[in-house]
Amino acid sequence: MGPSWTSAFGVVDSTAAQIGPGRRRGGPDAARAAALLDRFLSVRRATAALAAPLSAEDQQVQSMPDASPVKWHLAHTTWFFEEFVLSRAAPEYRRFHPRYAYLFNSYYEAVGPRHERPRRGLLTRPALAEVSAYRAFVEERVAEWLRGGRCGEADLDVLELGLHHEQQHQELVLTDVKHALFQNPLRPAWREDLPDPTGTAAPPLTFKALPGGVAEVGDPGEGFAFDNERPRHRVWLEPCALASRPATNAELLAFVEEGGYRRPELWLSDGFAAVRARGWEAPLYWERDGAGFVEFTLGGLRPLDLAAPASHLSFYEADAFARFSGARLPTEEEWELAARDEPVAGNLVEGGRFHPCAAAAEGEGPFAQLFGDVWEWTRSAYAPYPGFTPAPGALGEYNGKFMVSQVVLRGGSCVTPTSHLRPTYRNFFYPDARWQFAGVRLAKDLR
Amino acid sequence: MGPSWTSAFGVVDSTAAQIGPGRRRGGPDAARAAALLDRFLSVRRATAALAAPLSAEDQQVQSMPDASPVKWHLAHTTWFFEEFVLSRAAPEYRRFHPRYAYLFNSYYEAVGPRHERPRRGLLTRPALAEVSAYRAFVEERVAEWLRGGRCGEADLDVLELGLHHEQQHQELVLTDVKHALFQNPLRPAWREDLPDPTGTAAPPLTFKALPGGVAEVGDPGEGFAFDNERPRHRVWLEPCALASRPATNAELLAFVEEGGYRRPELWLSDGFAAVRARGWEAPLYWERDGAGFVEFTLGGLRPLDLAAPASHLSFYEADAFARFSGARLPTEEEWELAARDEPVAGNLVEGGRFHPCAAAAEGEGPFAQLFGDVWEWTRSAYAPYPGFTPAPGALGEYNGKFMVSQVVLRGGSCVTPTSHLRPTYRNFFYPDARWQFAGVRLAKDLR
Amino acid sequence: MGPSWTSAFGVVDSTAAQIGPGRRRGGPDAARAAALLDRFLSVRRATAALAAPLSAEDQQVQSMPDASPVKWHLAHTTWFFEEFVLSRAAPEYRRFHPRYAYLFNSYYEAVGPRHERPRRGLLTRPALAEVSAYRAFVEERVAEWLRGGRCGEADLDVLELGLHHEQQHQELVLTDVKHALFQNPLRPAWREDLPDPTGTAAPPLTFKALPGGVAEVGDPGEGFAFDNERPRHRVWLEPCALASRPATNAELLAFVEEGGYRRPELWLSDGFAAVRARGWEAPLYWERDGAGFVEFTLGGLRPLDLAAPASHLSFYEADAFARFSGARLPTEEEWELAARDEPVAGNLVEGGRFHPCAAAAEGEGPFAQLFGDVWEWTRSAYAPYPGFTPAPGALGEYNGKFMVSQVVLRGGSCVTPTSHLRPTYRNFFYPDARWQFAGVRLAKDLR
Amino acid sequence: MGPSWTSAFGVVDSTAAQIGPGRRRGGPDAARAAALLDRFLSVRRATAALAAPLSAEDQQVQSMPDASPVKWHLAHTTWFFEEFVLSRAAPEYRRFHPRYAYLFNSYYEAVGPRHERPRRGLLTRPALAEVSAYRAFVEERVAEWLRGGRCGEADLDVLELGLHHEQQHQELVLTDVKHALFQNPLRPAWREDLPDPTGTAAPPLTFKALPGGVAEVGDPGEGFAFDNERPRHRVWLEPCALASRPATNAELLAFVEEGGYRRPELWLSDGFAAVRARGWEAPLYWERDGAGFVEFTLGGLRPLDLAAPASHLSFYEADAFARFSGARLPTEEEWELAARDEPVAGNLVEGGRFHPCAAAAEGEGPFAQLFGDVWEWTRSAYAPYPGFTPAPGALGEYNGKFMVSQVVLRGGSCVTPTSHLRPTYRNFFYPDARWQFAGVRLAKDLR
Repeated sequence: MGPSWTSAFGVVDSTAAQIGPGRRRGGPDAARAAALLDRFLSVRRATAALAAPLSAEDQQVQSMPDASPVKWHLAHTTWFFEEFVLSRAAPEYRRFHPRYAYLFNSYYEAVGPRHERPRRGLLTRPALAEVSAYRAFVEERVAEWLRGGRCGEADLDVLELGLHHEQQHQELVLTDVKHALFQNPLRPAWREDLPDPTGTAAPPLTFKALPGGVAEVGDPGEGFAFDNERPRHRVWLEPCALASRPATNAELLAFVEEGGYRRPELWLSDGFAAVRARGWEAPLYWERDGAGFVEFTLGGLRPLDLAAPASHLSFYEADAFARFSGARLPTEEEWELAARDEPVAGNLVEGGRFHPCAAAAEGEGPFAQLFGDVWEWTRSAYAPYPGFTPAPGALGEYNGKFMVSQVVLRGGSCVTPTSHLRPTYRNFFYPDARWQFAGVRLAKDLR
Repeated sequence: MGPSWTSAFGVVDSTAAQIGPGRRRGGPDAARAAALLDRFLSVRRATAALAAPLSAEDQQVQSMPDASPVKWHLAHTTWFFEEFVLSRAAPEYRRFHPRYAYLFNSYYEAVGPRHERPRRGLLTRPALAEVSAYRAFVEERVAEWLRGGRCGEADLDVLELGLHHEQQHQELVLTDVKHALFQNPLRPAWREDLPDPTGTAAPPLTFKALPGGVAEVGDPGEGFAFDNERPRHRVWLEPCALASRPATNAELLAFVEEGGYRRPELWLSDGFAAVRARGWEAPLYWERDGAGFVEFTLGGLRPLDLAAPASHLSFYEADAFARFSGARLPTEEEWELAARDEPVAGNLVEGGRFHPCAAAAEGEGPFAQLFGDVWEWTRSAYAPYPGFTPAPGALGEYNGKFMVSQVVLRGGSCVTPTSHLRPTYRNFFYPDARWQFAGVRLAKDLR
Repeated sequence: MGPSWTSAFGVVDSTAAQIGPGRRRGGPDAARAAALLDRFLSVRRATAALAAPLSAEDQQVQSMPDASPVKWHLAHTTWFFEEFVLSRAAPEYRRFHPRYAYLFNSYYEAVGPRHERPRRGLLTRPALAEVSAYRAFVEERVAEWLRGGRCGEADLDVLELGLHHEQQHQELVLTDVKHALFQNPLRPAWREDLPDPTGTAAPPLTFKALPGGVAEVGDPGEGFAFDNERPRHRVWLEPCALASRPATNAELLAFVEEGGYRRPELWLSDGFAAVRARGWEAPLYWERDGAGFVEFTLGGLRPLDLAAPASHLSFYEADAFARFSGARLPTEEEWELAARDEPVAGNLVEGGRFHPCAAAAEGEGPFAQLFGDVWEWTRSAYAPYPGFTPAPGALGEYNGKFMVSQVVLRGGSCVTPTSHLRPTYRNFFYPDARWQFAGVRLAKDLR
Repeated sequence: MGPSWTSAFGVVDSTAAQIGPGRRRGGPDAARAAALLDRFLSVRRATAALAAPLSAEDQQVQSMPDASPVKWHLAHTTWFFEEFVLSRAAPEYRRFHPRYAYLFNSYYEAVGPRHERPRRGLLTRPALAEVSAYRAFVEERVAEWLRGGRCGEADLDVLELGLHHEQQHQELVLTDVKHALFQNPLRPAWREDLPDPTGTAAPPLTFKALPGGVAEVGDPGEGFAFDNERPRHRVWLEPCALASRPATNAELLAFVEEGGYRRPELWLSDGFAAVRARGWEAPLYWERDGAGFVEFTLGGLRPLDLAAPASHLSFYEADAFARFSGARLPTEEEWELAARDEPVAGNLVEGGRFHPCAAAAEGEGPFAQLFGDVWEWTRSAYAPYPGFTPAPGALGEYNGKFMVSQVVLRGGSCVTPTSHLRPTYRNFFYPDARWQFAGVRLAKDLR
């Protein structure tokens, strides 16, 4: 399983490197279509590889309204191509099933009504085999269309968006199934064969200064980006310092053991209300085991790796831990300033670890592990950039309508595809969400 | 599918007839063990046959806390024999899996802690195949034990209880999966090959008198009975009349069309509150289709069969319909008086209809369809009979601890095994439950 | 305060005795009207006396949906006479305010829409002073009408019903305000001047046998009775024994201290679910105080009186305590058999104690404290008697529509008016209700 | 009532003007103490004047967890001085009541446990008269202390904070009681004698440009400011344009009538979910009346004043209306840039209107009604300014712990005291809050 799976992702990466530019690029459409076909097939294979270790039953369940069944992810990402590419750009296309648009539309109001989100786990039909057939059907039609040589630039843009969309869902497949498996008292693994945590120690924590002044943030226009990364714009930043690496489980353990979850003065008011109402006593997936903790991973229960970046924190916990540490969370612009010249590399999904781990060796730049391992909570509310305009039509619902009450995370995690990331990439979740691989990099004011 | 399945139930019946006596009977244990072995194998086959048309995904889901996944039913009924027979009576027995008692104990506090009921649908492991292996394992051990010739009378009593327990769950398998499939906008069928509703008309509705005076009700002690049917005792009944057959869909349709669901004066206060809070406008599984209704069945959506007994009513609806009809519901004792000399026969699960239907022809007795088609709501709260004593130990939790706030139903339904029923059988559900095949037989005072 | 208040109730009683017969009585209407006028004024004064120790603020609040503000009780009982007597029987009557019917209708669907029950506590207008004016206005009009000499028998029946209705609300005024005051961390008293609990010891607990056979229960037709007490009818009873007195706080304390609230085997399934969900560890109004308990009373916090009948139990607790005691709850018919020849006397509201207390001395009959002190939970679900017919029109909603999921209590409490009670009187509450003065008298089978 | 009340506020204003500087000011403490005494007495009188038209019952109720009873506001603002000034700075001070700190602490964890917020409406004791005595007691002690001549600068800072704190609660007294009175079907008024809405027409809506570049925002340090307004810092702004006045009811009516509440494409996802879940069809307090709308005001129901600024909008509605209008909400920095040189004047609480109204005449600056009438929703999430440090100790909980998931509003409303406002003032509420006088000023990008 492991090898073939890794190669599925290997293809993604190399292909991604070949496609290069995104929306504002002027190359001939035929070449772009060919490159996108390779990438399309690669991304689709990668999704299937993630689901492959799971039974039809495993792919059926929905453990909470925020999560979706794996089977649903498989079908929804397929519907995206059917709805936004084939139905609009391929004149002869006939839909695979008349009701799938109803079942597998996630939230696009402009496209029509849809099955209620919290009830996705009740859809035992179509069966997984039918969803696989749906995937194959749409894949073949997309391939035909791409090969047909009559794809407009705008349609290819949507196809490319569809690939990034599917990559987002690849990450959700893993975070959602991890949450679902955790509901089972047997604590079963997604894959039993995952590598053991290394014995690597975490490097020491230091703070590295960033200068203040006017800076530019947002999509520089050199490749694909989501609309929420645009327009590139100026901001004024005060001088600050960011931690050289994310906080580790050892550091979170100190927070736990020094009563962090019982000290209201460390918490935002909403955060402490969540602690009380939900009985939080440690990060999600930590379980008491004698005097210490074990941790639930995609490979099952394991001893808590103290050197690894802490994960599965809500924004509230990240914020309280920062206060406990005499620090604060960075803003998303500060983070972007630190990361803008760094290569997108690290413990990402292609590495096959599927869990955060201590950096093997110090990198060259001042900041380690900016990409991969854990998404890093910022203190920035998710909001439109100055001059933001959503795309017209249904795809304008992709990002813009979520711009309230959520918080920005940056940098990707151990289950993010490398080709999906950029320094300007803005992820966002509600402040109480814990089921993502989300951690914390501390920041400090310098004045 | 159909034929082999029917024969599975055929075996049940004939075997049941051979076993004969229940708990107070003095026959030699070896013969009883042999008869019980036949019946055990037959009941187990019948359960498996009910699940066979369903995929592993179909057997995974739980559509509401009141219902359980089919896979869970398969495992729980197996655990019952493991826990209460093998672990106690078979000295060499080793449990199949150390955690299954935790996963598949339903509500027996005396046996230990258990997985929360509303979260049964999240147990993707053990997979269906493992549950099947569990079933085979326990079946083999039970068979060995029965053949071993050292079974005590009390242990055989528990085994026999386990058979009736599994038959109860056979009915729940069908009502629960019907509810689960109904959540799917595709309205899929459990089996596509179910027989069409007949064109038979319903016989006219008449009322047949029952005399008043002292009557005896409850288990006469001639065979197996649950503890809640005991002790047999005297009651005083006033003269009354019971309807010759259950109310039909045509009669319920008149209730719907004459505004029955909008007229508070017809309802108990709690009932009308449920109507408002849940938006009830018709019986469960009825769906508007143009000017009329279609009905969801185990065979999928079908035209509403007006001659068939109305089903999937809550007690509240049954009671309101009775008031609308100038009648009332019978008490459980009145019902038992009407049924005590009737044979247990009718549209039961062995008939292979899996849906209520109009009686093919008038029977010989005054009352048609007392058994089968639909459970009949009584006006009797589920309560202990005078002198009731629950069994000692964990099995005392089987019935007694539910004796508050529930209502008695009598007579069995189109998905009840024939050998499971008796005139004294007391079923019970909360007054708002609609997912059972439950209907209404009217009654009137005679004075 | 105390003296005048007591005399208000004193008048009630003696007057009640004078009125005598109820609905089937043939005396001249004028005499009946005169007697009812005396009683009407007396009942109205008694209600006002109960509210008098409370400020307008105290009378404003609603501590839970089951309870109502005192001010609302004052207005609602007034509206009852306006709606069902004056508006129908007094031709010239003009309503006090056009919207009061909307505000102060409790649940009579036939009369029209009404303010939502859980929001009664938000009605700061009309102010208490206006409600008092409303009371005076209606009282004057009723008195005029009664004095006018043209009252029909049926209208006088409704007036008499209104008096019993108001007496029911007198009891609720006290139980509801007790609950409301308990929400205040200051634990304030309704009246600071209530008598201290006596030092009387409880008599020993014995069981007294009742014979089995056919018995008659229900309203014998010699005075006022609610429709739910009718018709008088025969029942078959098995021989049983009832406790000579209600269970005491000392006995409940033993239940608490022997882990009663933590032992599922003692509880009905719904009951133990309530224990867990609501964190019950002792009867309502008991509070830990060092090693022991204090008890919240209408006179504030007091040491727990161990000799007094235990009170503020839910049905679930009463039932679990009975099981703990190797006994059961009586049926309502058994209770009625024990009480039918007993005088209605005891620690009732006229005694001015407003709290259960140990019987001062043994009475003459076999059973002590059948009336007063605490309502006694039976094991009987609240259901229509055989042949029950509700009154026509809106008043038919008085009792009948509540006949599901509730449980019958008998005997009245320390806050029940004496003239309101009868041996056949059926009170009813949901099995989880604790805010009434409700306790438990044990029973046992005799066979 | 009106005149004396107005003069109460008149005193506030003139006094406020005399005190002048705030925390960084070096004047002699005695003079500052004297000025603060005047202001203290004036603020306290103003609070009492707002409550005066209300009965004890009106001041008792709590209509939702977000709101508090008026009586509670009266006590809580008093407790603030007791807790943070007298108990700490006045050596001889003895608390008025040992339990009031428990009852009237709002949310200061560092000070100790407290009564649950949603249950404030159940505190009928202390009675209003006792709360008035509490107020008088604390006022006298504060006055003594201020006159005593030994007040440290830091203590006077806290006192001044207490005054601003009480002014915040003055506004809440009115918004909370408006909400409470609205729950009453009688739609009663806070005061019947409020002035009628003027017939003034709204000025035309134009957009006025603001330049981009680096700007300074936040407290300039010339007087009192809350910690959340500090530190003053630089931001980069893009050029934009702001509307010359807030949106009017006429403009919101067009939104309603053109289906604004039914068009998901106009709404944030969370916003449309709120619309659906709560059945919003128009701004809070609008009620259909024939073909049009009436509006509930502190003076009772009135015809909808089409020229007045629209009010009682949630952020979701403000945002959707902006999208409907082809515009957006301003950021808080843009708003501050527009307002920084404007005088704090307009329809504020001293004007005695207690309701938004059309500007009587155009002001001199480009922007009308920046202050008063309605708080203006910005698109800025409430977050710490760069370099923000909360105050040490319990008072550090005043603002900082709410900096997540809330949205900034600016400019004050018709019920805000003038001396309480500043251009840098940041108010904040959750995006679904509607019970404040909150409206919308449109903004547009300029590029």
